[in-house]
Amino acid sequence: MGGHITRYIQSNHPDWDIHGISRSLPVWNFLPGHEQIAGAIEFHQGDLLNAARTRQLVKEIDPDFILHLAAFSSVGESWQKPVEAVLNNTNAFLNVVEAVRLNNCCCRIVSVGSSEEYGIVDPSQLPIHEDARPRPANPYAVARVSQENLAQIYMQGYHLDICSTRSFNHIGPGQRIQFVVSSIADQFAKIAVNRGRDSPVISIGNGSIVRDFIDIEDVIRAYDILFTNGKTGETYNICTGKGHSIADIVRIFSEMLDISVDIEQQNTLLRPIDNPILVGSYEKIHAHTGWEPHVSIEESLRKIYSYWFDQESAKI
Amino acid sequence: MGGHITRYIQSNHPDWDIHGISRSLPVWNFLPGHEQIAGAIEFHQGDLLNAARTRQLVKEIDPDFILHLAAFSSVGESWQKPVEAVLNNTNAFLNVVEAVRLNNCCCRIVSVGSSEEYGIVDPSQLPIHEDARPRPANPYAVARVSQENLAQIYMQGYHLDICSTRSFNHIGPGQRIQFVVSSIADQFAKIAVNRGRDSPVISIGNGSIVRDFIDIEDVIRAYDILFTNGKTGETYNICTGKGHSIADIVRIFSEMLDISVDIEQQNTLLRPIDNPILVGSYEKIHAHTGWEPHVSIEESLRKIYSYWFDQESAKI
Repeated sequence: MGGHITRYIQSNHPDWDIHGISRSLPVWNFLPGHEQIAGAIEFHQGDLLNAARTRQLVKEIDPDFILHLAAFSSVGESWQKPVEAVLNNTNAFLNVVEAVRLNNCCCRIVSVGSSEEYGIVDPSQLPIHEDARPRPANPYAVARVSQENLAQIYMQGYHLDICSTRSFNHIGPGQRIQFVVSSIADQFAKIAVNRGRDSPVISIGNGSIVRDFIDIEDVIRAYDILFTNGKTGETYNICTGKGHSIADIVRIFSEMLDISVDIEQQNTLLRPIDNPILVGSYEKIHAHTGWEPHVSIEESLRKIYSYWFDQESAKI
Repeated sequence: MGGHITRYIQSNHPDWDIHGISRSLPVWNFLPGHEQIAGAIEFHQGDLLNAARTRQLVKEIDPDFILHLAAFSSVGESWQKPVEAVLNNTNAFLNVVEAVRLNNCCCRIVSVGSSEEYGIVDPSQLPIHEDARPRPANPYAVARVSQENLAQIYMQGYHLDICSTRSFNHIGPGQRIQFVVSSIADQFAKIAVNRGRDSPVISIGNGSIVRDFIDIEDVIRAYDILFTNGKTGETYNICTGKGHSIADIVRIFSEMLDISVDIEQQNTLLRPIDNPILVGSYEKIHAHTGWEPHVSIEESLRKIYSYWFDQESAKI
């Protein structure tokens, strides 16, 4: 996300000064022209779990806008490392808003949350709207609900200017293969590159679960529009309104690439609890800001495949 | 709470081994016979924010029951120190359940939560039942909701045996004067002890807010019954079903002690956001366990006054 949004701001707001805080210098070599993109942002080494350092950095930078992206964002990994998931979502965010409060900064914060906050949803509620009751069903989701609740408190009690999102599953080139669409695209790329050697099998977890996959470019446009047009204290779904099962994603890749595959369910990828279906409504953000998604699932998957094909080709 | 429950277990379960974990040796001199009570419990020095130490202690003790009382439990202070409120509620609890999970302990955990989790409640919902949607309205409440959500995840995803409570405002001798009933009782005790010297004025925050005050002895009986009769994964209100405003509490003390006072609102005690009224239903815990409250508000206030009168008398 950091690289993609830096590129976007560079193009669309060339007069902005862009600062980034991260534990270590990020590597954005999944983006064409990444050296030039990295040159457009001033990096500050810092761990958001270090409250004093975070406070000092926010004071130094004195931002007009904060986009809080730093997160432990894998549901699967959060079951393995629940403590890290809570620290690197809830506590990291808390240090950011606390730094803004204690430094008396006047800035708009866009706090990125997740569709996982909804948890197990009754099909009658789909597509889900923001007023649905959160029923978080994994450690990551609990941490995100807590973040959003804190955003409300900092807004109502301390008058910070925060917009929250519930961003649905975003996908794009460069996303790690711990995320399902990257994993599937990489497996297809491996098959294409080694055609004739590997057996055409795609390993996935639960193929029947349905998610609202949204292209990273659409997500970034939404965050940008929330900087200026989002309403203080509101929470917005960022989604496409369309659902695709994991098996669907495999099928779309298969047809697009004309590669027939078998699907193999890997039980180690199954989670203790999983939401069977999650599709959002973007009615609210559309009404407040005019935003709507532009990129089709096919177009998005094509970009992602292209990235992984280049990765796998380079290995030969 | 620690002292009161130790005394209760000592009397009611004389065959139990009682262990306590705390940062420093607690002082229970508000209890008659406190040396003997402290002698009944084996203390382990430990900070629940230290995950490794918590895991080691849970392994050593290998408990059958855990009553998780450790908390940063003042709503007012949580507005001053939101980070400490989150750490010492959510993160401390997380380290405890993680220690139980990683040590494969088979124990029943009673996770103490708060009525503050409900937040601002519509009067039509009163007395409030457990299925009401939590709308936490202060940093403390956010941390408690997060704790309860984590309890659900550890129960459903990792199969820990946890009962959660939403305990309403408990009151009892020894509670710090940061809590409103202690503060009022202490002010009355000062007036009684210094009669003729001080002007009879009671300082409070917002006198109109209504809470469901419950005596500590009733709370402890509820926790004890949940050890054995609570249902895994359930959340229980612990309350009296009766509401009293802060001004009511002043009036009851005033009549009980035959001391006329004026009420003075101290603006520094007001909170950025406050729940105007919060009264619970104890229907569910009664149905599942037979528990019901026994101590009247007058009886409870009398014990508390007596404690503070002794404190103030000793100063002369």
